Amino acid sequence: MSGKTGFEVNAAGRKVPVEANGKTQIPFPGLGKQLPQGRKAAPPVRSAAYYPADGDKRVPDLKTALEKCGLKSGMTVSSHHHFRNGDFIALKTLQAAAEIGARDLMWFPSASFPCQAPVVDLMEQGVVHHIEGSMNGPLGDYCSQGKMKGLGVLRSHGGRWQAIQDGEIHVDIAVIAAPTADPFGNCDGSHGPSACGSLGFALADSIYADHVIAVTDNLVPFPCVPWQIQGNNVDYVVEVDQVGDPSKIVSGTTQITRSPERLRIAKQIATLLRDAGIMKDGFSFQAGAGGIALAFVGYLKEMMRQDGVRARFVRGGSTSYLVDLLNEGLTDYILDGQTFDLAGVASIGENPRHLATSPFTSYNHHGKGNFASMVDAVVLGATEVDVNFNANVVTHSDGRLLHGIGGWQNCLHSGCTILAIPSFRDRIPVIVDQVTTLTGPGELIDVVATERGIAINPRRTDLLDALKGSKLPIRPIEEIKAEVERFCGGPPQKPVLTDDPVAIIKWVDGTVLDTVWKVGK
Amino acid sequence: MSGKTGFEVNAAGRKVPVEANGKTQIPFPGLGKQLPQGRKAAPPVRSAAYYPADGDKRVPDLKTALEKCGLKSGMTVSSHHHFRNGDFIALKTLQAAAEIGARDLMWFPSASFPCQAPVVDLMEQGVVHHIEGSMNGPLGDYCSQGKMKGLGVLRSHGGRWQAIQDGEIHVDIAVIAAPTADPFGNCDGSHGPSACGSLGFALADSIYADHVIAVTDNLVPFPCVPWQIQGNNVDYVVEVDQVGDPSKIVSGTTQITRSPERLRIAKQIATLLRDAGIMKDGFSFQAGAGGIALAFVGYLKEMMRQDGVRARFVRGGSTSYLVDLLNEGLTDYILDGQTFDLAGVASIGENPRHLATSPFTSYNHHGKGNFASMVDAVVLGATEVDVNFNANVVTHSDGRLLHGIGGWQNCLHSGCTILAIPSFRDRIPVIVDQVTTLTGPGELIDVVATERGIAINPRRTDLLDALKGSKLPIRPIEEIKAEVERFCGGPPQKPVLTDDPVAIIKWVDGTVLDTVWKVGK
Repeated sequence: MSGKTGFEVNAAGRKVPVEANGKTQIPFPGLGKQLPQGRKAAPPVRSAAYYPADGDKRVPDLKTALEKCGLKSGMTVSSHHHFRNGDFIALKTLQAAAEIGARDLMWFPSASFPCQAPVVDLMEQGVVHHIEGSMNGPLGDYCSQGKMKGLGVLRSHGGRWQAIQDGEIHVDIAVIAAPTADPFGNCDGSHGPSACGSLGFALADSIYADHVIAVTDNLVPFPCVPWQIQGNNVDYVVEVDQVGDPSKIVSGTTQITRSPERLRIAKQIATLLRDAGIMKDGFSFQAGAGGIALAFVGYLKEMMRQDGVRARFVRGGSTSYLVDLLNEGLTDYILDGQTFDLAGVASIGENPRHLATSPFTSYNHHGKGNFASMVDAVVLGATEVDVNFNANVVTHSDGRLLHGIGGWQNCLHSGCTILAIPSFRDRIPVIVDQVTTLTGPGELIDVVATERGIAINPRRTDLLDALKGSKLPIRPIEEIKAEVERFCGGPPQKPVLTDDPVAIIKWVDGTVLDTVWKVGK
Repeated sequence: MSGKTGFEVNAAGRKVPVEANGKTQIPFPGLGKQLPQGRKAAPPVRSAAYYPADGDKRVPDLKTALEKCGLKSGMTVSSHHHFRNGDFIALKTLQAAAEIGARDLMWFPSASFPCQAPVVDLMEQGVVHHIEGSMNGPLGDYCSQGKMKGLGVLRSHGGRWQAIQDGEIHVDIAVIAAPTADPFGNCDGSHGPSACGSLGFALADSIYADHVIAVTDNLVPFPCVPWQIQGNNVDYVVEVDQVGDPSKIVSGTTQITRSPERLRIAKQIATLLRDAGIMKDGFSFQAGAGGIALAFVGYLKEMMRQDGVRARFVRGGSTSYLVDLLNEGLTDYILDGQTFDLAGVASIGENPRHLATSPFTSYNHHGKGNFASMVDAVVLGATEVDVNFNANVVTHSDGRLLHGIGGWQNCLHSGCTILAIPSFRDRIPVIVDQVTTLTGPGELIDVVATERGIAINPRRTDLLDALKGSKLPIRPIEEIKAEVERFCGGPPQKPVLTDDPVAIIKWVDGTVLDTVWKVGK
């Protein structure tokens, strides 16, 4: 396995490998310390002379397309996850690659889901060497057990753009599942029988990959509008029966919580935004798809309505909760990177104020700024948080890697970053001395909201001042932690981990923030 | 002067310099022969750490912005021409550069117009070294007289994208006049008091330039929607009183002809499209902004209505004539690169089926195909055409360089390219033995339509066959030429030209198609 040649302790105090999958890594040097010097990746120049003048780039099937793209062993093949657990194409792509006889591929999904669990078999067979990308569920578990031949590399959505843009990852073949496309390769995610909303996660791949294949179950005559993916970047178009099952975009995490305690957290966060003066005309916010975050949107909506406040924009992952805000005129725009339910899909397809965004516009740390830092407040989840407000979002307290980063790291750059978490799960405290895996530096996390009180990062004296008159149960994080430990019978058991790295966690600037270690017996 | 070290005769039989402005040039090797091998230009990687977290990139004025961009002598500064003769910003930019003390700049406009004639003074003063870009009117005349310090380099809209994309031109500072923008630098051309429509001509500059300045007279809170130019590519935002006068977008060339003879040409072209079976359900066409082309649209509309035919898309340069087609349901879409009148501006701002395009999607020969070759028929103008259907669009028969190429070369790739021209102008025949400046190879020109008959390129036996039963006055081009020469008293006088090159004409693949020579006394 690569990445074992040596370790360094980074500025966050974490031991990280200095190499991963044959590439030298930069240990996280502290926030804002890593400043890029180089130039962007330079894709090959093509010529219209090589492409059909009538614009018809169709080939019979995915296997033919992969062959025409020159698929070879050792290549990097990418896919996107807008269908989340309902994707039909990524797995089929890798299986077609297996049929062609390719081996040791690097799979570079924007995220992987349980529906892609059979990629384990392809890894066992040597078709796929390793995965760089979020691994939700079984693939993460497989990685945790140290069975993957290479190191997992987890990046945020913005970090994935940065890695492609900066040439850290070279995608040989990108395969894009398109709910609508034309023979030229223009792709649209927001219309068609399998509409999934935005296709932003595939955008970097379409721009920078050597070869791009669009796969669709809804071919329309040129032009396919809107062309979220531009046919001018696409080599081949493949028609299939179905690209994905959009009903499976909705996962367990996109349901509103019914727990009275969690509803209370949600309400308190909305109150905090109001009392701190963040909720004011022209403000903006983002709420993740977790149950508390969704409930928060409902409470905030009521308060906005009561106070006659209108947002300038809200950021999605869009859900019916955000769509309601837009339709009621409580926000001017939804800026949407990923549709999380079918109400979101319908809205992005028909409402010109519901806009598809990409990780470039929203999250790329190596652009001339991005949208994330312009968001006034964001409500996110976490698996663990420590007393210095450092947080974990990828591993459980047993050390297993079961979640991706998503846009979470990028969102930490908002004006007020709030983690909405229960103080314990399954009688295991969530506030700890040190997180199992550092995914977000505490300097960027402003509020930890639990059912036992709200902790505000002492660095945010401005926020503490603004909330001086508030009736919110603001408490030191250490106090909440101690109370939970009394209740749960002490701090959580340390996970049993080995000294073998199985994955690394990249920060938004491409440096290595932490290591995920193989779980012990 | 650069570009004088030697000449070669290219595959079109034209003598072209092997170097221009210090850069080695490739003589045109014949259609489809020049195949690119390299990689695209790689702009510098930036970091959000260098840009304000609140997204506010405003600076007080253009001069400050240029200074912050590190303007130095010898740099390349670019601008766009969506305001055509009503642009207020390009000249101000170069004048501000003069104030700063910069010298020997290369000005790289997407096109220049008479309103920018004072750039002559800046060239005389040494502030501007030379212009690469279309020079309409006085600047072209100045160039023709051999007064510019460097060679003019004329490119098509697609060729300009290709040159930037391929790294042939490195833009140091791009200045974008934006009818609407937000403090982050998102720019929209289709709304605001100075709305001009699309901003596609500035798109390549925004992506590839080292530094990008957005100048606006209509600042809106983030997000400015649609973001035709992405703020993630913009460094600074400057507010001014007025970016341009959109009423001056309408030039003399965007008025329908009143001449009965030219109207007859227009009607015959429409008839040709119908009789040849090109005008059928789902077809597409593009008409330039010339008087005959505009009249053609009117006639074709009547025929489409009569025959119950609906186009899939029409390409603009949009005018009220195309907007009427869209509003009457005679086309599904307008794909618009440049709005030519205020009806076009209004439509692109409000009709979701009126879409802004860019030279990347429409014209870039070094992409994976482009829209131009998918257009079934295009009607264009020319200053001269020869008996082999080679055409000139940049110089007059006296050799003076007075026009740009625009999208003309790119449009030649359509399924049926029609030049609509009067057979003579000012008693000077337009059909000649050899064009003064070769701008488009005859192999790509299918029809020359004059008031004295329609000549079809003998290569297009399919078209000749399709029109066998037609009543159109189809005649050999030589016959029309002979008739015109009898009428005008012989072929046109040869222009008096020197051996000094003043400009080169690039083909869409970046090779040199022809040379413009200094005019003699």
